Amino acid sequence: MALIVQKYGGTSVGTVERIQAVAEKVAQVRQRGDQIVVVVSAMSGETNRLIALARAIDERPDPREMDVLISTGEQVTIALLSMALHKIDCPAKSYTGGQVDILTDNAFSKARIRGIDDVRVRSDLEAGRVVVVAGFQGVDEHGNITTLGRGGSDTTAVALAAALKADECQIFTDVDGVYTTDPRVEPKARRLERITFEEMLEMASLGSKVLQIRAVEFAGKYNVPLRVLSSFEEGEGTLITFEDEGMEEAKISGIAFNRDEAKLTIRGVPDQPGVAYSILGPIAGANIEIDMIVQNVSEDNTTDFTFTVHRNDFTKALELLQDTATVLGAREASGDDSIVKISLVGVGMRSHAGIAATMFETLAKEGINIGMISTSEIKVSVVVDEKYLELGVRALHNAFNLEQNGVANP
Amino acid sequence: MALIVQKYGGTSVGTVERIQAVAEKVAQVRQRGDQIVVVVSAMSGETNRLIALARAIDERPDPREMDVLISTGEQVTIALLSMALHKIDCPAKSYTGGQVDILTDNAFSKARIRGIDDVRVRSDLEAGRVVVVAGFQGVDEHGNITTLGRGGSDTTAVALAAALKADECQIFTDVDGVYTTDPRVEPKARRLERITFEEMLEMASLGSKVLQIRAVEFAGKYNVPLRVLSSFEEGEGTLITFEDEGMEEAKISGIAFNRDEAKLTIRGVPDQPGVAYSILGPIAGANIEIDMIVQNVSEDNTTDFTFTVHRNDFTKALELLQDTATVLGAREASGDDSIVKISLVGVGMRSHAGIAATMFETLAKEGINIGMISTSEIKVSVVVDEKYLELGVRALHNAFNLEQNGVANP
Repeated sequence: MALIVQKYGGTSVGTVERIQAVAEKVAQVRQRGDQIVVVVSAMSGETNRLIALARAIDERPDPREMDVLISTGEQVTIALLSMALHKIDCPAKSYTGGQVDILTDNAFSKARIRGIDDVRVRSDLEAGRVVVVAGFQGVDEHGNITTLGRGGSDTTAVALAAALKADECQIFTDVDGVYTTDPRVEPKARRLERITFEEMLEMASLGSKVLQIRAVEFAGKYNVPLRVLSSFEEGEGTLITFEDEGMEEAKISGIAFNRDEAKLTIRGVPDQPGVAYSILGPIAGANIEIDMIVQNVSEDNTTDFTFTVHRNDFTKALELLQDTATVLGAREASGDDSIVKISLVGVGMRSHAGIAATMFETLAKEGINIGMISTSEIKVSVVVDEKYLELGVRALHNAFNLEQNGVANP
Repeated sequence: MALIVQKYGGTSVGTVERIQAVAEKVAQVRQRGDQIVVVVSAMSGETNRLIALARAIDERPDPREMDVLISTGEQVTIALLSMALHKIDCPAKSYTGGQVDILTDNAFSKARIRGIDDVRVRSDLEAGRVVVVAGFQGVDEHGNITTLGRGGSDTTAVALAAALKADECQIFTDVDGVYTTDPRVEPKARRLERITFEEMLEMASLGSKVLQIRAVEFAGKYNVPLRVLSSFEEGEGTLITFEDEGMEEAKISGIAFNRDEAKLTIRGVPDQPGVAYSILGPIAGANIEIDMIVQNVSEDNTTDFTFTVHRNDFTKALELLQDTATVLGAREASGDDSIVKISLVGVGMRSHAGIAATMFETLAKEGINIGMISTSEIKVSVVVDEKYLELGVRALHNAFNLEQNGVANP
């Protein structure tokens, strides 16, 4: 007998008919003798409806009251799913976040889970019931309702799985797993059977469409085996797991990319201690997040410094950088917002040399110029002109044989 | 400094604009230095929307889950009203039924309040905050969400007022008070400044449009002064209060009537002990509620027996009565579903003779035949042909000078 935690997102419970379909899936798990806890989001559209009501009253509504309001969305879903389970003679009981003591800090709208009291859930499971829990919500130590922020339902599922020491936490979504790259860019992209937590984190730009990073971190921390599956199709999905020997064979798991970046360069900065802070301090001070940073030593005791920011922040960041250039007596501050970042991700990289070399060679063959390079233990990222995105991704997908590494679509 | 509990029903909070108007009203109370607790219902239409979702899944949804679902309606309102209060710089805090420990039994959908822990509410009031509480809901001893059934928000308000020993519990609704009779039947009907709890209970057929009987009983039991006011107009409304000397002067407070009754008669029943039970037992056994009962001794050691039921139950009740007539060897069972009940209500009746006589004389003058008579300490009810309803009510309103007893409309 296994203990499974399943999570269904807003699209998967978006209508009464879909809720009934979820009930059928859940009842099957119980029927084969496993214990099951189901975490659900608000029906798609419901959260936006509630936000619109609040905004009609106040553009910046009180955060505590916002959480009281928004948390009703999941409460509606747990009740409806439990009713649908009863209707097909599957005993079930619903719980709000507060009712199963999902204790959080008091950071309304972005609370973090501190602990879960699993006594009620366990006793229901032992009585043969399906336990249906509202995702995305909890209570602080004073009993105030809190919500966990975007993707919080994934986090609820993982936290429950950790507390209950579940055998698997299954995240049902509208894609059927994690792919070697975005199938809209490379139609030959294949579903991965397995991926490590670290790879999943590095694949953020792909992964965020599938799983919230916070939930992945949480699962990694508490050793919860996580599986991504489709609500609408049969299939094994992708298991997000710990590194194992079998995985060493694959050098690269996937190719992530990001179209939302812009790069900024300051040239001819006097090369002295504290210069990096002088350049990036004002950017960070304006609450602009910085992604890649590259610094090269150049001639005449001056240096060139390049970094990337979100494309939305480009104009503001360039203004700030030009001010800095004047202050520091730099030669030039410039920028380019028509770039993309392409990353190769794979734990195999650690033990195999030559990955970066093959990457650069492949891009060179296609005549793609590399603007920036940055590496981590399991990732190599390059910045290229955005017009080369599709060409670059497809060339790399082919060069690393990812079509073979993945799983063919049904 | 007074402590006021105000309750606003679904129509009063039916739109964002109306919620903002309620916030203005509430903020005024606080501004004049009084403490205030506000109880709100779900926005009008919301409860029906939720019921429709549940019915789409199961015609008879699980009662526990139904309460989890329905209780979200009030939770939305408390959040929105608190936001609207913050927006106009009035500090406020919302609470669900569970958060202020409105402890109930576990009769889902019709739970009864057992107690309220007023610690949180008091500490917020002392900190100068408006406390906004979700009506209609509570939790049982295991923390399950319960709802109180129809009109439950009134009961929540009265129970909070009792627990907090509030100076007044004000029920805001879409009428501006309790009238001497229904103004749609007698345009000269006037608003009453005061009415006693007992009169209010007897005026059920009028009063139910204004206040839930359960809330009135609760207020009477715990000595909570209750006032009915309009959400949409200024005015003093009607105070529902304890009998006082000033009230003895008015013989009659109002005229209630009920169009929903049907009468059934069984004639020539052997007059022996247990016969009433033989007749009414099967009716009660079929879950049909009985209102008036009249029995006359007639000749030949047989008796005639007449009672009234809700018009919806007429056909079923008549069938049962005909079976009973056969079993008891009665002469005849018959019925009439085109009757109405008209009642004079007033605590003054206790100390003034002749009320009933004046009533019968007035009806006789108009040529209205009386089919049944029933009396209580503060009420005289007659059953007449339904075509005489308007004529009868107007004649009695005039005969007892109710136009003078009430308060002129503004």
